[in-house]
Amino acid sequence: MDFRIARRDDVPAILGLLADDDIARGRGPVSEEADAAVWRAFEEIDADSNNELIVGEEDGEVVATCQLTFTPGLSRGGATRMTIEAVRVRQDRRGGGRGRKLMAYAVDRARERGCRIVQLTTDKRRSDAQRFYASLGFAASHEGMKLVL
Amino acid sequence: MDFRIARRDDVPAILGLLADDDIARGRGPVSEEADAAVWRAFEEIDADSNNELIVGEEDGEVVATCQLTFTPGLSRGGATRMTIEAVRVRQDRRGGGRGRKLMAYAVDRARERGCRIVQLTTDKRRSDAQRFYASLGFAASHEGMKLVL
Repeated sequence: MDFRIARRDDVPAILGLLADDDIARGRGPVSEEADAAVWRAFEEIDADSNNELIVGEEDGEVVATCQLTFTPGLSRGGATRMTIEAVRVRQDRRGGGRGRKLMAYAVDRARERGCRIVQLTTDKRRSDAQRFYASLGFAASHEGMKLVL
Repeated sequence: MDFRIARRDDVPAILGLLADDDIARGRGPVSEEADAAVWRAFEEIDADSNNELIVGEEDGEVVATCQLTFTPGLSRGGATRMTIEAVRVRQDRRGGGRGRKLMAYAVDRARERGCRIVQLTTDKRRSDAQRFYASLGFAASHEGMKLVL
């Protein structure tokens, strides 16, 4: 699997990966207005050096994705933290270590950018995901709290 | 309490608020090199329209702070999410509703920026903080996982 920054023409495949998930499906269908919002979001991510939308490609197909956000902060001696969101591996390619490679790539990016902490939140219903991240050294030390507006 | 974007001359007071905390103290003293890193982080936040370092001021003194990060994403129909980090109210001003006002200000900023979700993580040892955020409508739906590099 090769990793690279997503291009505009990867967006449909990424949306497919994001939607192909029981919890995401539970959020309901995406409205027509959302279409424009998705493209706007892509352009904004693409233009922002503190956001990287990553794809994992295999034989010319996008089979994995995640988004990395680098956040400067005054805490911990002015440490930059990297937040990982929207991690997905295509259903038919799971169980072969691709998630592990994706996360290794992400953590390497954090080191390259000089981050001192990598963080993510995972839905408490995704117990497999929690075991997976714990096996990579992530500590479930925090409550991840969300307020939907 | 008046809320505004932090200025360069607020940084010492913000660092005081961040350090005045049992869990933060447990991370050990800040090294001399960190001093330059803190100023660099302030400049980076100040120049980034997707990051807002907020202070709450009372009688000319900084008594509360938080950092807001706005992250564009393809999930949830291209929704922008707001992440809140480094929330603090000065020890001698707690218990008077200032934390609640700070969070109300933060959530208003999320609405003004068109965010559809507000998120934060809080150390599982901070049980008062969890009750506080739950009382504001935050759901503890996620595990907050951290990897220190």
